[in-house]
Amino acid sequence: MLVEFSIIPIGKGESLGDEIAKALDTVDKSGLPYRATPMSTIIEGEWDEVMDLINRCHREVLATAPRVVTTISIDDRPSGPPGRITSKLASVEERLGREVRK
Amino acid sequence: MLVEFSIIPIGKGESLGDEIAKALDTVDKSGLPYRATPMSTIIEGEWDEVMDLINRCHREVLATAPRVVTTISIDDRPSGPPGRITSKLASVEERLGREVRK
Amino acid sequence: MLVEFSIIPIGKGESLGDEIAKALDTVDKSGLPYRATPMSTIIEGEWDEVMDLINRCHREVLATAPRVVTTISIDDRPSGPPGRITSKLASVEERLGREVRK
Amino acid sequence: MLVEFSIIPIGKGESLGDEIAKALDTVDKSGLPYRATPMSTIIEGEWDEVMDLINRCHREVLATAPRVVTTISIDDRPSGPPGRITSKLASVEERLGREVRK
Repeated sequence: MLVEFSIIPIGKGESLGDEIAKALDTVDKSGLPYRATPMSTIIEGEWDEVMDLINRCHREVLATAPRVVTTISIDDRPSGPPGRITSKLASVEERLGREVRK
Repeated sequence: MLVEFSIIPIGKGESLGDEIAKALDTVDKSGLPYRATPMSTIIEGEWDEVMDLINRCHREVLATAPRVVTTISIDDRPSGPPGRITSKLASVEERLGREVRK
Repeated sequence: MLVEFSIIPIGKGESLGDEIAKALDTVDKSGLPYRATPMSTIIEGEWDEVMDLINRCHREVLATAPRVVTTISIDDRPSGPPGRITSKLASVEERLGREVRK
Repeated sequence: MLVEFSIIPIGKGESLGDEIAKALDTVDKSGLPYRATPMSTIIEGEWDEVMDLINRCHREVLATAPRVVTTISIDDRPSGPPGRITSKLASVEERLGREVRK
């Protein structure tokens, strides 16, 4: 399944760059396919491995802030082709007959 | 932690009442404190028990639809008082000096 | 349409009660049907009136914090019955044959 | 402000590629800076222009489906640098000392 998540520490400063960098580093080391976006991180995998990874990132941020708000969106389509993290947009570009900004 | 979630089956009809009823029944039987809202379900508990419950609801809906989109929002504040599922709004009502519509 | 929203100020303290109280007061005065939940506020109305109201709440919080994250979920079903803010859960309770915790 | 949104038609088939393509085409023609991701579209702009654009996309999908669920996340940081749609990730990459997958 495809899973998008973002983690917001509350009760600290307004800059979230350090927390995002650390979480992205944890995602990168997990070996799961991922994409970083200006608003979130998207990973592809099975429920348990994905949720374990997000839990780890959530704990890391919680170690630095008194309160954390984490948002997760899951798009689960078992009959979909593998590699949906790339094929979803590729199929949209095919329909449009051109590339989109990624 | 407080966790809000909603599960949307895709590729079926436009009415989601049956799926929502089934998921709420599963939540109710879990024994975790919960609130049903017109847009989602909110539960209070630890990461593992809450995520296991949402996973179960997600699987149940996935058994009836080819694609499922599940959204989860977590508000984690370890130093907060227990029973935040009721105390958060109670504290807001105290500030306002009146009840709000729930 | 039914619209759920939450507004999180970033770069302030960890308690959000004051901001939530102020936003709920603004919602209450708008006259639109609403429900407060432990995680968000739900309102029913047309696009323009709902978005104007959320914009007003967003601006109020932005006046007190250097950064604000606002999340909005819209469930738009034009052929649905009026008063979905109450009828959605009522229809679920009818299916279950019992009341749910609200 | 940075705004991420996704639009899900309900009561149609399980493939959403046509709707996503059409919405991305509308976004592309708006002239606002945007990024397409496997889970959503991200745009940068002021409240009114961004919300008008999302409303237009929402209406287009609603013309083809009996029910539509649209989710919007806003990250508003007035003192932030312009061009946050590119600078946010650039600042994370600087912290990490390497590029991330985009």
